[in-house]
Amino acid sequence: MRIESSKSGQVKHVAALQKKAKYRREQGAFVVEGLKMVLEAPANRVISIYASDSFVNQGGRELLAGRSFTEVSDSAFRAMADTQTPQGVLAVIKSMAWAERDLYRGGAEPPLLMILENLQDPGNLGTIIRAGEGAGVTGVIMSRETVDIYNPKVIRSTMGSIYRVPFVVSEDLPGVLSRCRQAGIVSYAAHLRGEKNYEEANYRGPSAFLIGNEAAGLSKELSDAADFLVKIPMKGAVESLNAAIAASVFMYETARQRRA
Amino acid sequence: MRIESSKSGQVKHVAALQKKAKYRREQGAFVVEGLKMVLEAPANRVISIYASDSFVNQGGRELLAGRSFTEVSDSAFRAMADTQTPQGVLAVIKSMAWAERDLYRGGAEPPLLMILENLQDPGNLGTIIRAGEGAGVTGVIMSRETVDIYNPKVIRSTMGSIYRVPFVVSEDLPGVLSRCRQAGIVSYAAHLRGEKNYEEANYRGPSAFLIGNEAAGLSKELSDAADFLVKIPMKGAVESLNAAIAASVFMYETARQRRA
Repeated sequence: MRIESSKSGQVKHVAALQKKAKYRREQGAFVVEGLKMVLEAPANRVISIYASDSFVNQGGRELLAGRSFTEVSDSAFRAMADTQTPQGVLAVIKSMAWAERDLYRGGAEPPLLMILENLQDPGNLGTIIRAGEGAGVTGVIMSRETVDIYNPKVIRSTMGSIYRVPFVVSEDLPGVLSRCRQAGIVSYAAHLRGEKNYEEANYRGPSAFLIGNEAAGLSKELSDAADFLVKIPMKGAVESLNAAIAASVFMYETARQRRA
Repeated sequence: MRIESSKSGQVKHVAALQKKAKYRREQGAFVVEGLKMVLEAPANRVISIYASDSFVNQGGRELLAGRSFTEVSDSAFRAMADTQTPQGVLAVIKSMAWAERDLYRGGAEPPLLMILENLQDPGNLGTIIRAGEGAGVTGVIMSRETVDIYNPKVIRSTMGSIYRVPFVVSEDLPGVLSRCRQAGIVSYAAHLRGEKNYEEANYRGPSAFLIGNEAAGLSKELSDAADFLVKIPMKGAVESLNAAIAASVFMYETARQRRA
């Protein structure tokens, strides 16, 4: 079957998944674009793949390596795509389903959790997921008000790490901190008024880092609930770091300590 | 004098400075938006300040603390602004003028230089300048093909650090590396095939880091010319880090070593 019209029900379904977080939640699905994202998707989560005429005519069938897909006209594909210059292939993926309790258990390495309060910038969230995978982050826990992780801009900036880094959304981050404590995970809040420089703490054991909203920082409730406040000392007139940079400084310091 | 029409010559001048890198170079000027950026601008570089009627009517005159400015109608201001929801104040600033040779001299601390080859993403460049000031970077040297540092998106993401971190554009990055060597500055190229993990090198002395283009990485010419290739070890399926994240891992590791 080939889809010609950009008014087709399937086209509208994909376009709505791209645009509306609520619809994504109702449908339990999200959209990934581009060949790398389609090929890296776990096979058991792929609901459907769509490829444009142009993509198929330029060797797309072989690039998709035997996966079944629906061919769509170029204009229908543009109506489905979020990017301005789409590659011509996208997939609808069943939402990831991680359990919060599993994040508190260590695997080969002790837990390294990132707890994100109300991050709003899609690029920041996606970059934390991508850089986090590289640093060995074992889980990401986000407040409900955090930008939707299935937002197309977040997905793009994860560069595929969205499939591999476990994450959950929680209504109750203070509760998450209590459960961390019960599980022996020490929590560190990034804070301008931290008593210690971040590198003076020991992250070789189970550790969790709290990162706050880009403008407001961490809420008082959550900083108060953390085990330790740590700061990244700043030179010059810089007051704070971008959230993804601050998160990365913590994540890669942890990776460094765990290698040593 | 107050400007009413968005067709005024001054409005067109500012709009052209926002949009065209070539015009910025010819005029030796750039535009900053928002109260923080206007107030932090070095007084001797401010050419002119423009404030919208709405800004002035909502206490803007006091916020500008005695600085002289030209009032413009809200519609003229929108024609000058790059942001979608402008704060109502912007300034034209004389381009910064740093000399390359000064970057090779140490000050209170040994040089810590970032050498950027063809970075294209404005957010990455701005974030490196901002995070760099916080880490104590003493200079940034960019290839000619790097995104224009006076691009409004770069300026915004520097959060004011553009005024304080010395930078130059160079036609000849291999020549920069030779001059680093003559000045006793050791150069490190971020490279997937680095022989050493980055934390095994000692950055307490004069150091320079090379960061490559987001898609292509560092050119072979430049990696070959660096004193050492170092890598940030990656877990999972991550191949590389975002350029601003990689730069920050190096910069904050250097700051950490220099504190120790």
